[in-house]
Amino acid sequence: MTIRFGVIGTGAIGREHMRRITQKLLGGEIAAVTDIDLSAARKAVEELGIEARIYPEEELLADRSIDAVIITSWGPAHEASVLAAIAAGKYVFVEKPLATTIEGCERIVQAEEKIGRRMVQVGYMRRYDRGYQALKSVVACGELGSPLMVRCTHRNAAVDERYTTEMAVLDTLVHELDVTRWLVGDDYAEVQAVFPRRTKYAHEALQDPQIFLLRTQTGIVITAEVFVNCRYGYDIQCEIVCEEGTVSLPAEASVEFKHDALHKRAVPQDWKLRFADAYDAELQDFINQVERCNEPQGPSAWDGYLATLAAEACVRAQKSQGWESVTPGISQPKFIAGRV
Amino acid sequence: MTIRFGVIGTGAIGREHMRRITQKLLGGEIAAVTDIDLSAARKAVEELGIEARIYPEEELLADRSIDAVIITSWGPAHEASVLAAIAAGKYVFVEKPLATTIEGCERIVQAEEKIGRRMVQVGYMRRYDRGYQALKSVVACGELGSPLMVRCTHRNAAVDERYTTEMAVLDTLVHELDVTRWLVGDDYAEVQAVFPRRTKYAHEALQDPQIFLLRTQTGIVITAEVFVNCRYGYDIQCEIVCEEGTVSLPAEASVEFKHDALHKRAVPQDWKLRFADAYDAELQDFINQVERCNEPQGPSAWDGYLATLAAEACVRAQKSQGWESVTPGISQPKFIAGRV
Amino acid sequence: MTIRFGVIGTGAIGREHMRRITQKLLGGEIAAVTDIDLSAARKAVEELGIEARIYPEEELLADRSIDAVIITSWGPAHEASVLAAIAAGKYVFVEKPLATTIEGCERIVQAEEKIGRRMVQVGYMRRYDRGYQALKSVVACGELGSPLMVRCTHRNAAVDERYTTEMAVLDTLVHELDVTRWLVGDDYAEVQAVFPRRTKYAHEALQDPQIFLLRTQTGIVITAEVFVNCRYGYDIQCEIVCEEGTVSLPAEASVEFKHDALHKRAVPQDWKLRFADAYDAELQDFINQVERCNEPQGPSAWDGYLATLAAEACVRAQKSQGWESVTPGISQPKFIAGRV
Amino acid sequence: MTIRFGVIGTGAIGREHMRRITQKLLGGEIAAVTDIDLSAARKAVEELGIEARIYPEEELLADRSIDAVIITSWGPAHEASVLAAIAAGKYVFVEKPLATTIEGCERIVQAEEKIGRRMVQVGYMRRYDRGYQALKSVVACGELGSPLMVRCTHRNAAVDERYTTEMAVLDTLVHELDVTRWLVGDDYAEVQAVFPRRTKYAHEALQDPQIFLLRTQTGIVITAEVFVNCRYGYDIQCEIVCEEGTVSLPAEASVEFKHDALHKRAVPQDWKLRFADAYDAELQDFINQVERCNEPQGPSAWDGYLATLAAEACVRAQKSQGWESVTPGISQPKFIAGRV
Ligand SMILES: [Mg+2]
Ligand SMILES: [Mg+2]
Ligand SMILES: [Mg+2]
Ligand SMILES: [Mg+2]
Repeated sequence: MTIRFGVIGTGAIGREHMRRITQKLLGGEIAAVTDIDLSAARKAVEELGIEARIYPEEELLADRSIDAVIITSWGPAHEASVLAAIAAGKYVFVEKPLATTIEGCERIVQAEEKIGRRMVQVGYMRRYDRGYQALKSVVACGELGSPLMVRCTHRNAAVDERYTTEMAVLDTLVHELDVTRWLVGDDYAEVQAVFPRRTKYAHEALQDPQIFLLRTQTGIVITAEVFVNCRYGYDIQCEIVCEEGTVSLPAEASVEFKHDALHKRAVPQDWKLRFADAYDAELQDFINQVERCNEPQGPSAWDGYLATLAAEACVRAQKSQGWESVTPGISQPKFIAGRV
Repeated sequence: MTIRFGVIGTGAIGREHMRRITQKLLGGEIAAVTDIDLSAARKAVEELGIEARIYPEEELLADRSIDAVIITSWGPAHEASVLAAIAAGKYVFVEKPLATTIEGCERIVQAEEKIGRRMVQVGYMRRYDRGYQALKSVVACGELGSPLMVRCTHRNAAVDERYTTEMAVLDTLVHELDVTRWLVGDDYAEVQAVFPRRTKYAHEALQDPQIFLLRTQTGIVITAEVFVNCRYGYDIQCEIVCEEGTVSLPAEASVEFKHDALHKRAVPQDWKLRFADAYDAELQDFINQVERCNEPQGPSAWDGYLATLAAEACVRAQKSQGWESVTPGISQPKFIAGRV
Repeated sequence: MTIRFGVIGTGAIGREHMRRITQKLLGGEIAAVTDIDLSAARKAVEELGIEARIYPEEELLADRSIDAVIITSWGPAHEASVLAAIAAGKYVFVEKPLATTIEGCERIVQAEEKIGRRMVQVGYMRRYDRGYQALKSVVACGELGSPLMVRCTHRNAAVDERYTTEMAVLDTLVHELDVTRWLVGDDYAEVQAVFPRRTKYAHEALQDPQIFLLRTQTGIVITAEVFVNCRYGYDIQCEIVCEEGTVSLPAEASVEFKHDALHKRAVPQDWKLRFADAYDAELQDFINQVERCNEPQGPSAWDGYLATLAAEACVRAQKSQGWESVTPGISQPKFIAGRV
Repeated sequence: MTIRFGVIGTGAIGREHMRRITQKLLGGEIAAVTDIDLSAARKAVEELGIEARIYPEEELLADRSIDAVIITSWGPAHEASVLAAIAAGKYVFVEKPLATTIEGCERIVQAEEKIGRRMVQVGYMRRYDRGYQALKSVVACGELGSPLMVRCTHRNAAVDERYTTEMAVLDTLVHELDVTRWLVGDDYAEVQAVFPRRTKYAHEALQDPQIFLLRTQTGIVITAEVFVNCRYGYDIQCEIVCEEGTVSLPAEASVEFKHDALHKRAVPQDWKLRFADAYDAELQDFINQVERCNEPQGPSAWDGYLATLAAEACVRAQKSQGWESVTPGISQPKFIAGRV
């Protein structure tokens, strides 16, 4: 069976997922597309050269022939689309964030809970990266004992003037917030932000770099650096320090040069390339799981909720520069509990 | 348009390509399958859970609905199948070797030449590996000047008793013979084999390790080590030494451990994993090129001929322990000339 | 001219320096030795097979033929010996800490200030390590722009039961406190301690690991991890993140193995080996500078004072788990100002 | 006791050893100096600021107060000086080559044999390098089983016009000839030279790069590349491939940069820096061994003879481009046998 997708939002990421499903993945097809600007939706469909219906979101959600939606509109619109899709009985693949407010996330978790099984997957694609998966399996198998500390680095070459201090959490750190929690299998208790000296390359509205400390409920401390004007490239690091030893993400596989008095290799400049395989894998897995077991298995609405909850605490910590607690307002749905 | 494939030979590699086309790649389907043992063909089809006709090779080749064949029978059968497929107007993806004799390769080249365009691609998948492609682009762009030397290492953890001294060339070194010629864009002039002290892990019929020296027509010297009982894993290295500097394949991307008094990472044990992406890419490219331009663009019959020609010289050199020349008996078809 | 040394304290480090000056370095000799247990001093001299006078500390300091003293007694005795040696006109090489109290350090700084030139060098040997010197020169030359963050890791395989939470600062972190301040050329303003989940290998009186955040006066943030039961070995890391790029200590130079399914190298187990060359270099430089310019040029009494001051703030931060300020009670002597 | 040295030849290396013994090492002093140009000897002594007698070589060798000589004249003069020094009962540290002819080396071995104990050490300093010593100990302890192959690379950034094809063996490869034989504990049986395409940076009288194959008596094959206009720096590599795994020299310990879209570290440009510690260690060991056991323990006259013998075969192989045998004309003196 081919999963028939409706796409809500045809910005860059939306078009990327359309292309991915059409040209790279198996088992799915883009059957319907919408956007607040329908002419943009039409253009996206034409560029890709596919047959797909183009109509307003309400009609798309009412279309019985659509199995699942991909929500790639701007963040504030996510909640309404996710809730409507759940109500319409459609599987949801939603880009991060699940919703921009904690309450919005809670409403989604509760809507899904009423259905009684998973409908939603959030686009935290790092869980599908080979390196992170290897880290996860090392921690899970216990060969290094219990994790005590995690050290994360998230560096970008540069950002433009629209990127603000808060976005360092909401757009950037949020990936670490999700993947680290998943890696160590433990929820956050409190977070702190520390602001180093500002780089001269940061625009006015941006504190850059930033350091975050996150403490889990069992006391694991994560140190996470966000530095989005590091100049030299895109650089994602993760080291997990356990009782018996440490394990780290591999360095990027680049050819090695000896040239010009240097032993050197290129640092990737483009974040899309770094996680290209993970983007493919997350969506392929969504397709496969929906078809095989009628439930997606990737990052859940609950995961999306906790990521947003931790991000909101980090934003508070940016302002207070002290420890801020991370306290869920609702309980984990039973059908989620016990899954990683 | 979907390319309808017929598969000739359902051994391990044949079944692997069937699974690949069915479950991972886009634009192709397994429409027909044959094997000298038709019950093996039937079993392969059933295991995969596909609909595909099962009939003798002659019928498969006569079937007008089949666009292309994948030839994964044993080596000595390749020539006849390739020639019959070309005669039947079908595109051919044939596993290495193109044919087991030089004359057989020549007949294939000439058969294709009569058609006047490319019909055949040989399964030298390394050209589709990201690392080798990066090496190729470095050499091609000229930033390191002209290549002078290449150093290759091809190590396997272990081989079984059926693996002989000749197979070190025909099954193993042959990958270096193809990919190195492609990397430097130059044909071989002569080759030499040197036998070091034998490892105690080599079975009786096997000299292991072996060292080969290859000299191209412009004088580039390739040093290639084949060591198939190296014990520690699967290890493929390639360094190109140019006038301005050197470039090497990246080390395998494995997570890094600090544990047990060691800084360590795993060496891959399985050669399939090392080139898994390349196997996918070669066949996807075959599908795409056949559909788009009615010609495959990967390793050609001419490439397959030159690889077999060089391999045959290496086998002679194993016996003579001196330099043996590599001399093609036919000229390169015009429609191939100038392509890399 | 040979510098005639008196050694005060013949514990392990004292005997090591005696051996070093006698057998490895040029320009110095051990002329006199004392210890609170004179028989230990006698044994140390005999074992080394040298001619050296053995008498109480007062007599040693009164001996006009002695040019310089090496103070390797236990920490609480340092202050009295240093002050007495300065009063006796002798150059002082004192192991860390300069003194165990802030007031003691201040008295030493002021005693030296009265003399009007440098008499004292403190044994912070890392400044003489080739790796740290390379980092220093990169920062100093400005090619990477201003430093914004420093990430330090200080790990030991294991410690015994006498090692306490405070010692993680006083014996271990103190090396980072000195060397990092020297690297970035900036003084500390405040410090914070964060305690992760305790490893099961920590003894009762020890929180292990610990994380420290240090903020300098210009806002550079140093993140320093101390983990003294990391099990896998001795591991010192330092990365300096600047506006234009980063620079890190080299990995240890160990031969590389491919063996047993691993690509591996040994992690040093012994901290003495890691800094063996630095220990030689610091003392050789002390000898050379005293002879050439009548002033040692290594870590000064002022440096020793600031290291103790920062350490004391870190100990307060261990208890408060909040930010603690680092405030000198005296000013930097004029003859020190402007030196790095 | 201080070893009193006479230096014969005050070119660059001679003056370097004079400085080393005077300023860095223990237990030796430069007591006498000669050169074919006595004014050069005088200048060397004055520059160093030492007291040393300056007189013709005959007088120096007749001076009963001199314990040992350092022979750093040009190669063709070595034999006569070594023989005269042995006759005069003086220990000899002679720079490579021991002598420029095989017969000359044989005369020296036989002269020493008449004395009945070791008098001579040849300046093959790599045996004193920490990396090579670690390789040696890995091979010797047997943890990787028997060595089967060795891969050596010897690259220099550039050479001047006086450097010829032969010098690639006599000045450059000869270090590999000595150290590899020592590493694997096996003598050479035959050698071959292969000339790749010439780099455009090679001067007229120079084939560059060159590849040498060396086969030992037990069949170990060494592949050694000499490339003295590699442009990017000084690069010494050595990998020993054994039955159970491989071991390689560590990469140079240089600080790591992430800067300018690159992950990079500097390649050393200066060969003196690479082996600076080894140069110190070889001469310190010579001093120590002569004083303690009246025999130097480093590379012997026999080692120097075998290096010259192998080098001479390599020069023949450069001309013949075929295998050339390495056959000693005399037997190993009994007092050498069994030593490594
Ligand atoms: Mg995503
Ligand atoms: Mg293939
Ligand atoms: Mg010290
Ligand atoms: Mg030497």
